[in-house]
Amino acid sequence: MEAKSGSSTSATTILLHNAVIVTMDSDSRVFQNGAVFIDKDKIKAIGQSPDILHQFSHLAHHTLDLHRQILLPGFINTHVHTSQQLGRGIADDVDLMTWLHHRIWPYESNMTQEDSYLSTLLCGIELIHSGVTCFAEAGGQHVEGMARAVELLGLRACLTESIMDSGKGLPASWGTRTTDDCIQSQKKLYEKHHNTADGRIRVWLGIRQIMNATDRLLLETRDVARELKTGIHMHVAEIPYENQVVRDTRNVDDGTVTFLDKIEFLQENLLAAHTVWVNDTEIGFLSRAGVKVSHCPASAMRMLGFARIREMLNAGIPVSLGTDGAPSNNRMSIVDEMYLASLINKGREVYAKGTTDPTALPAETVLEMATINGAKSVLWDDEIGSLEVGKKADIVVVNPFSWSMVPLHDCISNLVYCMRTENVVSVMCNGKWIMKDKKILNVDECRSDSNAFEFI
Amino acid sequence: MEAKSGSSTSATTILLHNAVIVTMDSDSRVFQNGAVFIDKDKIKAIGQSPDILHQFSHLAHHTLDLHRQILLPGFINTHVHTSQQLGRGIADDVDLMTWLHHRIWPYESNMTQEDSYLSTLLCGIELIHSGVTCFAEAGGQHVEGMARAVELLGLRACLTESIMDSGKGLPASWGTRTTDDCIQSQKKLYEKHHNTADGRIRVWLGIRQIMNATDRLLLETRDVARELKTGIHMHVAEIPYENQVVRDTRNVDDGTVTFLDKIEFLQENLLAAHTVWVNDTEIGFLSRAGVKVSHCPASAMRMLGFARIREMLNAGIPVSLGTDGAPSNNRMSIVDEMYLASLINKGREVYAKGTTDPTALPAETVLEMATINGAKSVLWDDEIGSLEVGKKADIVVVNPFSWSMVPLHDCISNLVYCMRTENVVSVMCNGKWIMKDKKILNVDECRSDSNAFEFI
Repeated sequence: MEAKSGSSTSATTILLHNAVIVTMDSDSRVFQNGAVFIDKDKIKAIGQSPDILHQFSHLAHHTLDLHRQILLPGFINTHVHTSQQLGRGIADDVDLMTWLHHRIWPYESNMTQEDSYLSTLLCGIELIHSGVTCFAEAGGQHVEGMARAVELLGLRACLTESIMDSGKGLPASWGTRTTDDCIQSQKKLYEKHHNTADGRIRVWLGIRQIMNATDRLLLETRDVARELKTGIHMHVAEIPYENQVVRDTRNVDDGTVTFLDKIEFLQENLLAAHTVWVNDTEIGFLSRAGVKVSHCPASAMRMLGFARIREMLNAGIPVSLGTDGAPSNNRMSIVDEMYLASLINKGREVYAKGTTDPTALPAETVLEMATINGAKSVLWDDEIGSLEVGKKADIVVVNPFSWSMVPLHDCISNLVYCMRTENVVSVMCNGKWIMKDKKILNVDECRSDSNAFEFI
Repeated sequence: MEAKSGSSTSATTILLHNAVIVTMDSDSRVFQNGAVFIDKDKIKAIGQSPDILHQFSHLAHHTLDLHRQILLPGFINTHVHTSQQLGRGIADDVDLMTWLHHRIWPYESNMTQEDSYLSTLLCGIELIHSGVTCFAEAGGQHVEGMARAVELLGLRACLTESIMDSGKGLPASWGTRTTDDCIQSQKKLYEKHHNTADGRIRVWLGIRQIMNATDRLLLETRDVARELKTGIHMHVAEIPYENQVVRDTRNVDDGTVTFLDKIEFLQENLLAAHTVWVNDTEIGFLSRAGVKVSHCPASAMRMLGFARIREMLNAGIPVSLGTDGAPSNNRMSIVDEMYLASLINKGREVYAKGTTDPTALPAETVLEMATINGAKSVLWDDEIGSLEVGKKADIVVVNPFSWSMVPLHDCISNLVYCMRTENVVSVMCNGKWIMKDKKILNVDECRSDSNAFEFI
């Protein structure tokens, strides 16, 4: 019943059985002894092990006994600055203005395509070890470098250029772009990279943040995204100062979300990152428009404040999880973000209601945020985010039989509250293993294809 | 220069060199190429590698090149319910009363000595993997079982019985103890176990919490602790309701801390766990009396609220870090608590001052909390908490050369914000390796001496 022949990465049919399968489908099905049959890049069948083995064993090029390990959909990280990975640790414990003006802008504005490639490679390795199969880039300078790394690693990604056509105090190399430049550049990237790497790479449009965007850029971005049928990734309502600037310069009573609603920018294909400083009315705007929100718990705690996640989820907004970039968080782990999301949002209730609420954001909700809500956020839930027949085979295998996760009274609970990256053993994306038994398959982590990490 | 002969665990002199040594001594010294010479259980010399090699190579039974890995004092976890480890996951996402009355009390009140031994064994394994060499038990039923596990694992610990002589609604087996019983039982445990296991085990006195303690118990505990020259471990000011009960029944204006000050219970040997709901006056009381505080960030976020850590540190209170028990936190990792402590206390400033303060609780402060402040909290800073000549050899070796910690712009920063348990490779306690190359040495993690984990 074990691997029959050839490399598992090139097999076209794979049968995984004897696993606890957490499907995250709309019925929240869990198979205690489950199996999944994968044909090329897709899930062909899922169910009880005896049934699947009976029906598909003879068709499987590889059959793998998972020995009761947990199998679940690959995690989706909906806000990552891959270009910032090499800047991890350059801006810890400093105030926000120092962080931005003296550390991040000088670092990011001096990057080359090759730097971006290396940074994305290193970031991608960390994402895969954390069980991530798909991520949404928050916006960087060199999409081409990112795409090279994503293609090599075997990940799925929505890549976005960092787009700014206005704003004070930007580094010289960034201050000169016109609105037309911004739009044309993104159209070219879309033409070149969208739907490449076996369909694993999509290109989105970006707005870095409202203080660096003219109204014309916002409106053209909205229209071009509609024309290209793609998404928009934008930092929204990060700090009170941002809302203040919008009130002062753009003639609205509240903040960014109110202004975006006024100009009809809010729509289903907008992924709003952070979205910390919003009031009830603005949550209503986001909900009605079908906007998606990426909650980045660590980064919010460190830099921004407490996002109103419970309220947004209650309003039906698909809230997902992001790590943000390494200089904002340091640990680029969705596994840790799940743990944090639940803790922080339970604790936040102290201020909302006077006492903590240990029932807020239960484990099931948090696991949805990291999987199916992630898929909705990246506009890809027709193909990923849950384990279902016809969806892509994006899968994580978790070994719960070690000191960090035993005893296993409740599998979902232990996945969210106990699991650490060291419990993530194997990761499959698009039907191909990209990490197997904790070893990244497509690059040498110690010595990459271009000796990328020699300087470390 | 590598291991010469015999088992490293039985060597009496060990020379570790070519390490980045973070001493955590009063000068915050860091040796970029450092070495330490260990004679039996103590550090005999520490300094630059060439100097130490020159002076001590000929005396070393074992010499180990650490290849630029980071060497630092063993972490000290100052609030752990070892008995609750087997109850991990039994009380997630439920309200506080369900947590206590329907999950934890029934679980804990039915434990045997053997259960406690197994629970402590499993907990200890997790602590060691997280780089902990010393912990303070928060109070459990069976100190004898704990002591057996601690002795076997090779850890250092301050063990405490769970002590209650009053309170409503307690399980039948707990409700009957008299004050005299409580005191006598602890004196016997002290006689039997204090200063055993090569001096690694100390016995402390316990007060579970003020709502389960008569005034007589508090005062006798204070006096007996003074007589035995040992510490007192007590949960203090955990929830607003506790302070309310104290105000209603004990005739003070504020809460627990005010009452404890009034009866002269506050003193240098008190380790106050959590200490979330305290006002400025009470912080003053704690500071003047020399009380130590154990901050448990995850548990506080989930169940209790935001402790005023910045204010307590500013008042000169040695605040250290604890994981609390597995049903309160789930991850029993000081490595994660460091990351959380910094994030949560930066975020808490939103409510104290209107915006987050990324400069609050910088990495150096958090590392002090997990090391030297931990040592002060367990009244053992004459022997542990920093790497200095004459102190015990309680040491952690961290491998920073992997995807989770590179690039290494700032070693202290990366230890606090990036390190995960998988970076902790070796742990030494009292001059003996208890984990080497990620393998626990004194028990078989997969199959313990008594097949303890077969049921998992």
